Amino acid sequence: MNRRETLGIAVVGTGRMGADHVRRIDRVISGARVAAVVDIDRARAEAVAAGVDGCTAYVDADEAMASADVDAVLVASSGAAHEEALLAAFARDLPVLCEKPLTPDAASALRVMEAEVALGHRLVQVGFMRRYDTEYVRLKALLGTGQLGRPLMLHNRHRNVASPPFFTSSMLITDSVAHEVDVTRWLLGHEISAVTVLCPEPSSGAPGGLRDPQFVVLETDGGALSDVEIFVNCGFGYQVQAEAVCERGTARIGDGHELVTNMAGRWGGTIPQDWTERFAQAYDDEVQAWVDATRRGEVTGPSTWDGYAAAAVCEAGVRALETGRRVEVSLAERPGLYGAEV
Amino acid sequence: MNRRETLGIAVVGTGRMGADHVRRIDRVISGARVAAVVDIDRARAEAVAAGVDGCTAYVDADEAMASADVDAVLVASSGAAHEEALLAAFARDLPVLCEKPLTPDAASALRVMEAEVALGHRLVQVGFMRRYDTEYVRLKALLGTGQLGRPLMLHNRHRNVASPPFFTSSMLITDSVAHEVDVTRWLLGHEISAVTVLCPEPSSGAPGGLRDPQFVVLETDGGALSDVEIFVNCGFGYQVQAEAVCERGTARIGDGHELVTNMAGRWGGTIPQDWTERFAQAYDDEVQAWVDATRRGEVTGPSTWDGYAAAAVCEAGVRALETGRRVEVSLAERPGLYGAEV
Amino acid sequence: MNRRETLGIAVVGTGRMGADHVRRIDRVISGARVAAVVDIDRARAEAVAAGVDGCTAYVDADEAMASADVDAVLVASSGAAHEEALLAAFARDLPVLCEKPLTPDAASALRVMEAEVALGHRLVQVGFMRRYDTEYVRLKALLGTGQLGRPLMLHNRHRNVASPPFFTSSMLITDSVAHEVDVTRWLLGHEISAVTVLCPEPSSGAPGGLRDPQFVVLETDGGALSDVEIFVNCGFGYQVQAEAVCERGTARIGDGHELVTNMAGRWGGTIPQDWTERFAQAYDDEVQAWVDATRRGEVTGPSTWDGYAAAAVCEAGVRALETGRRVEVSLAERPGLYGAEV
Amino acid sequence: MNRRETLGIAVVGTGRMGADHVRRIDRVISGARVAAVVDIDRARAEAVAAGVDGCTAYVDADEAMASADVDAVLVASSGAAHEEALLAAFARDLPVLCEKPLTPDAASALRVMEAEVALGHRLVQVGFMRRYDTEYVRLKALLGTGQLGRPLMLHNRHRNVASPPFFTSSMLITDSVAHEVDVTRWLLGHEISAVTVLCPEPSSGAPGGLRDPQFVVLETDGGALSDVEIFVNCGFGYQVQAEAVCERGTARIGDGHELVTNMAGRWGGTIPQDWTERFAQAYDDEVQAWVDATRRGEVTGPSTWDGYAAAAVCEAGVRALETGRRVEVSLAERPGLYGAEV
Repeated sequence: MNRRETLGIAVVGTGRMGADHVRRIDRVISGARVAAVVDIDRARAEAVAAGVDGCTAYVDADEAMASADVDAVLVASSGAAHEEALLAAFARDLPVLCEKPLTPDAASALRVMEAEVALGHRLVQVGFMRRYDTEYVRLKALLGTGQLGRPLMLHNRHRNVASPPFFTSSMLITDSVAHEVDVTRWLLGHEISAVTVLCPEPSSGAPGGLRDPQFVVLETDGGALSDVEIFVNCGFGYQVQAEAVCERGTARIGDGHELVTNMAGRWGGTIPQDWTERFAQAYDDEVQAWVDATRRGEVTGPSTWDGYAAAAVCEAGVRALETGRRVEVSLAERPGLYGAEV
Repeated sequence: MNRRETLGIAVVGTGRMGADHVRRIDRVISGARVAAVVDIDRARAEAVAAGVDGCTAYVDADEAMASADVDAVLVASSGAAHEEALLAAFARDLPVLCEKPLTPDAASALRVMEAEVALGHRLVQVGFMRRYDTEYVRLKALLGTGQLGRPLMLHNRHRNVASPPFFTSSMLITDSVAHEVDVTRWLLGHEISAVTVLCPEPSSGAPGGLRDPQFVVLETDGGALSDVEIFVNCGFGYQVQAEAVCERGTARIGDGHELVTNMAGRWGGTIPQDWTERFAQAYDDEVQAWVDATRRGEVTGPSTWDGYAAAAVCEAGVRALETGRRVEVSLAERPGLYGAEV
Repeated sequence: MNRRETLGIAVVGTGRMGADHVRRIDRVISGARVAAVVDIDRARAEAVAAGVDGCTAYVDADEAMASADVDAVLVASSGAAHEEALLAAFARDLPVLCEKPLTPDAASALRVMEAEVALGHRLVQVGFMRRYDTEYVRLKALLGTGQLGRPLMLHNRHRNVASPPFFTSSMLITDSVAHEVDVTRWLLGHEISAVTVLCPEPSSGAPGGLRDPQFVVLETDGGALSDVEIFVNCGFGYQVQAEAVCERGTARIGDGHELVTNMAGRWGGTIPQDWTERFAQAYDDEVQAWVDATRRGEVTGPSTWDGYAAAAVCEAGVRALETGRRVEVSLAERPGLYGAEV
Repeated sequence: MNRRETLGIAVVGTGRMGADHVRRIDRVISGARVAAVVDIDRARAEAVAAGVDGCTAYVDADEAMASADVDAVLVASSGAAHEEALLAAFARDLPVLCEKPLTPDAASALRVMEAEVALGHRLVQVGFMRRYDTEYVRLKALLGTGQLGRPLMLHNRHRNVASPPFFTSSMLITDSVAHEVDVTRWLLGHEISAVTVLCPEPSSGAPGGLRDPQFVVLETDGGALSDVEIFVNCGFGYQVQAEAVCERGTARIGDGHELVTNMAGRWGGTIPQDWTERFAQAYDDEVQAWVDATRRGEVTGPSTWDGYAAAAVCEAGVRALETGRRVEVSLAERPGLYGAEV
């Protein structure tokens, strides 16, 4: 495929997660477009497709994948439906981004893996999105430098405000701790060899019968421990934290700071060395906002008046610097074109 | 213009900033493409154009704007060249994103403003990108709620590791404090009415003759004060901080925490309520990484093996929960397709 | 004087501050006792004296200083009365701890200084207690190491919840900023050479007519600047912060962290290397609590039961370590002597 | 005993910990004095006694306790010697502060407890000094308010730079985790019912054969879990942290911040409302420094010159406020009496 060609994507499943991916590909992602959406609820698929230029709604995933417009597949249907969608994509040799879990159990996951191995090349990226989170990425990079030495333990906290009504005690493991399972494997580069789960008396904030919170200890084949507090009815917020304890220091993410380390008698974080790092997001959002407004036929953001006012103040500032005195700023009258608001 | 049509942009100036905007539009921004680049250095323009599909190099900005492919202009040339580029864009009624400063002095900025007013509609967005920085946006939003009461003072810190060789004492005002001038006007919604600049004995880390650091006090027509420490050879990092002191509390950004407030006997920040807030960036980067790899014909990221391993561990975890005991995990053999790395 | 002899102190002034010093010398300070209290309000002096063993009440300071029991004087009366008390102590060559301000104006302070110089030796310690605050002490020590280079600027914040009814706009300077005046001189080792005061529109939380907040800029004879936000009706709490900006880094105290530095690409603080540093206060308070209880004829704090329970749990812990298994703890029955509470 | 009488204390054991307690009682503690020190090493006892006025050295603890000067006993000898010293104090009905551990094993602790119960009143305070640490005290107080709801889990971190040469794997439990055992019991008000110890592959920073770090999970009879990371060769510092996870929020101490809570969508800490809270330690240290200097016949701390200079600057400040202008400060010449240093 020519790198410059825009990728046509079929999104399978248009529930909350699928619809959010449709919006993301349509509005945020560069180099791709939503060519097709699939849902067994035809009305829902058509409603989503209606909001996207050149997007067709399907009920059958295989039919969507057969379309000449479709170059790749994003699977966001319920876990139970993943195996079928993945095998259909394999049959057409289409790359797939598959939301987690890959499939609901180890046996079906093994079948999918065997099918991919039979193809002889990878097609699947699993949706463990924490591997793309800036804080986890920085933590992984720091561990990779070897500055802290070998990781010995990983302490994880995973807290949700409240669990949805259908949540069961097992789902704290399969739906929530599943993320820490992947994070542990990825950060440490170990496989997990044993699991222990301890349950304190449940919180009175948890629905009756739900074992919440739980405390999970994972042991790895590299001799490390990873403990997880999972608390899905903590009531106060959504919080995901991790601290890697290594031979020569620790590093922690997720508690309102940037990455914080303990090392050589000091705790703290790094300071960027450059505006490209500090304001990368601001530049991206600025240009995206300008493109979006321009496509709508609008002009928004800082105006010529703002540019003029800054120039006038800076001129006064330079005089203040040169004279060592307070200098008053005088501005032209503000044209109505620029509204009343600064 | 149809919202769905991809915007063709001419980037004027292909120095460090212009080239970075070309990369941004080509790789990050959704709904736009670089149709043209302009530089008085033809070789530089052509080198940049060569890296972008369907992009033409020009020496003359007006010629580029005349192209049928160009719907909008991004001006990233040196400040002295802005007025001419802006007036050329006005002549063709093209929307412009103009890097700061709008122009180097108040008189020329006034001429540009008068030309835009004569057109009768806005065409210009000035590149004060801090208005798009997440931390400043949160601070502005908080001030807008009125929870903290009326702002009385704004304390700003603006620190660079080292200044470039051509930097003069005036440029600390016109190049650096210019950002705080805009931030003060935007956050407070006031115009600036007077400026005082105080200079301590220069740092021995500053080049000879440079008045660095400086301390600038801005007074506003709304009765507020905004003080700015500008220190362009601080040596230790790039740091931009602001604290708004209001009638009922203060709010601070930029020092390794998220937005921190002092209010009603408590200091601290907010906790997100949802994973959509905490992991928005991770989802965006995940999908962008998948699209980029797929367009290159590659499959990267978490593999089917990772999905299978997670399923196997979660199954063991559920058994551990149900039995209250440590459960060992057993995995199938890892196929060579997935490499040696976890 | 023999170092081991207990110091007899006359406390002059038994208002809020004086009474607190009486309590402090009686209950907290080692090696001293309150021998006399003085107040023009005889009843108040007697009430305070009644709570302290061997303490005599006086109306006249000079009479108290004449007592053979009095070795030193602590002046905590109103500022206007300080000059007379200091001169009386000088007449008897008694050491004095004098609450700030030394006297209310420069002329009277000069008279006191001339009298002390005439004596030929120092007798006075002025009550600038911030020089004894752990955070300021650490900041001063850090500046003294030279690690950060020469100090260029000092940013100070001084916030009170609400001002007392008698507070005037001048008192924000003479009563509040007086502390930052001393802190600036002490931290930097410079004299102050000029002062500028800027006032934003007063907060609606300030009493009518009070210029609150104010922004004060001090210039020093060493070429440094020290700016002070003084805000005595901030509404949210009592907050005293300082950031020293030096040639190679900055150091900040007072905002809910320990001393935090910016240096060489890192922000953060130090980690103690030893329990003697981390728990010094706990040991002091533990022993003081034990002494106080014992003198009252009581036994409080962790009991023999607590010691026993810890021993039993640790024994089980060692078995758990040795066997790699969960070990249950069994305790003897808890004797009634130790109450019901753990 | 009359509350005002100074308490005569016998300190048993004059090793590192005992000597530190002697210094503390002599120099820091109000209302007590060291009447006797006891050590089987007579030379060491005498050396310590020589530094304290009116202190007698003994080799035999019982003999020291028989002295009329001794009102109470502080036991700081090795753990194995505690039982005998405690029983001797019981025989004379003397109150005891006994360093932890009470005794080295549960059986001997039980014997001590039975002896005290037989007396019918408490004599022993065990030296679990964390119960007096400001941060733990604040955490306990917060839990007591019920704002956070019932505690469900306690996460503890206990890290030392390096272990002493004689440290064994069991001592990580009996010497180190012993503190968390008490903290868990005290903070939660529960007894501990079971213990599990997990060991990752030891750190290469630990001496050969030492199982370090260890991860200990304590279960309580109140249905809570308390996990402890104990890592006695972490290399970077001494760190003691705890986070209580409750039904409606969490609270954390020990990581370079004051007490930080997660509650109702906010993380953060409290701001003092008053200078008596913020500067309590500074006032105590100021007065102690003055008393100590005066007893040595010296005058230290802020001088009359400092008081005068502050008065002069404040006068200039008031004029700057009144005139809205920069006002220069002029000072008298500095008398030689006050040295050259500000």
